Amino acid sequence: MSDTPLLAGIEAGGTKVIAVIGTGPDDTVAEMRIPTTTPSETLGAVTDFLRTQIDAGNVPAAGGIASFGPVELRRTSDRYGFITTTPKPGWSGTDMLGPISEVIGGPVAFDTDVNGAALGEGRWGAARGLDTFVYLTVGTGIGGGAIVGGRVAHGLVHAEMGHLVVPRHPGDDFAGRCPFHGDCLEGMASGPALEARWGVAPPQLSGADLDAAVEMEAWYIAHGLRSIVYVTAPERIVIGGGVSTMPGLMPRVRQSLVDALGGYPGLPEHASVDFVVPAELGAMAGPAGALALAADALAR
Amino acid sequence: MSDTPLLAGIEAGGTKVIAVIGTGPDDTVAEMRIPTTTPSETLGAVTDFLRTQIDAGNVPAAGGIASFGPVELRRTSDRYGFITTTPKPGWSGTDMLGPISEVIGGPVAFDTDVNGAALGEGRWGAARGLDTFVYLTVGTGIGGGAIVGGRVAHGLVHAEMGHLVVPRHPGDDFAGRCPFHGDCLEGMASGPALEARWGVAPPQLSGADLDAAVEMEAWYIAHGLRSIVYVTAPERIVIGGGVSTMPGLMPRVRQSLVDALGGYPGLPEHASVDFVVPAELGAMAGPAGALALAADALAR
Repeated sequence: MSDTPLLAGIEAGGTKVIAVIGTGPDDTVAEMRIPTTTPSETLGAVTDFLRTQIDAGNVPAAGGIASFGPVELRRTSDRYGFITTTPKPGWSGTDMLGPISEVIGGPVAFDTDVNGAALGEGRWGAARGLDTFVYLTVGTGIGGGAIVGGRVAHGLVHAEMGHLVVPRHPGDDFAGRCPFHGDCLEGMASGPALEARWGVAPPQLSGADLDAAVEMEAWYIAHGLRSIVYVTAPERIVIGGGVSTMPGLMPRVRQSLVDALGGYPGLPEHASVDFVVPAELGAMAGPAGALALAADALAR
Repeated sequence: MSDTPLLAGIEAGGTKVIAVIGTGPDDTVAEMRIPTTTPSETLGAVTDFLRTQIDAGNVPAAGGIASFGPVELRRTSDRYGFITTTPKPGWSGTDMLGPISEVIGGPVAFDTDVNGAALGEGRWGAARGLDTFVYLTVGTGIGGGAIVGGRVAHGLVHAEMGHLVVPRHPGDDFAGRCPFHGDCLEGMASGPALEARWGVAPPQLSGADLDAAVEMEAWYIAHGLRSIVYVTAPERIVIGGGVSTMPGLMPRVRQSLVDALGGYPGLPEHASVDFVVPAELGAMAGPAGALALAADALAR
């Protein structure tokens, strides 16, 4: 164990919750994984874990909660740190920050799981050393976090990059499955969209179907990235999530992004293998994100 | 004159340059306007003006340059503060920051005219008091600046919001006139695009044509705003530029944005008249932006 202070990270996902105590994703002293059940049972288990650790001498100097959403991130709101309206039964209006803050004496940061993962990639992963970058996760859903000057971009609400406008791939007649927009990025390129379009889950694709699916997936991701590039001009874009590991996807996304930018602004860096890169934290993205939030809270 | 320090603001536009000394756009003590000719003549006139003012006792504590572009904004580059490659004859590779910094003793900030205007609207205009917002200018070109946590978003390069993907309006068969993308936001909704589509400049439109043009313009702007909302989640969007003053445009943009968001994330604030608002600085946007950059430089 190093001399840096201990942190508490809580990744609250829709199906499981992971709580860790440590200085970083590679240096944890305690960890707990539980299924996400009711708010009182789940948060009760988290606070029990934290209390037990503190009693055992593993006292975190700060905490971070990377939560499923939608969540209230405006500090001016009296529901700051709450889950707002979620389809997950029983969880709408749950105060996540309050009960956990009560146990951890120090500052506790609260953000979405995606924004946490973005900060984690910046601190320990594929965006180390950069202060303006974007993390995009492509899996069951599509979401993104924009870091600008070291700060997570959120104003009224958090980013919702899955819902960007994308032009239809010329060879694609799939209607799209976003309940709000139909054929937005998430509607066309999430894991469930792929499965609905091709009739099998992405890992089962092979041969010509796999090739066509990868090319189409790269098109949609690249057109989403085009808008991201034009809005925040990131130094790098990190892509994670289950779908992002489709074989051969990353080089095609890079090529498709170059095509989508159409030579504007004509920066050679946008074509570099260092611009669009795979996430490095993998399965640890969630807890690492929560620890990154805690480190951020401590630094302020 | 107030007790706040004097600042120097230089708006370097493609056709004219305005230099002001003052504490803000409503409190200037000296001003110079010249046409943009050659780099040496133009920058010479600016530095002469600054020297004369300093000799007269109007000594700026800091300076700001809001420049036409494209410009190099990476502080790590040895061409930081330069205009990079511009179609404007003679101006490619011009060092803007160097000669002006030499005259002004204090810190001098350098950014695009659009990012300057964004900061100006934040300090003195329609986004006062907010730290995460977007400024979009719709005129001869379309450009935007995103402010996140009080900082201008730029990583590899500055934002280029004119080039966002927008879906074609169902009633529109105009091909678009962006030389890079054809039918991107700027290609469909800039002043020249309107003139090419309707055969007359926007101010000459009337009757049913004006109505149709406003409705179409609102559609394109709103779909650009949708991507901006989903990437940076701003607290407010400020719209300036000549085309933005088309009669009845602003309410239609608000309605069209609500339609484009499709109920997601379902925040009532996105439908509010306080969310999409007209710019307040008008003709002073450029110099105000340059002064805002100077104030920012001083504050660091």
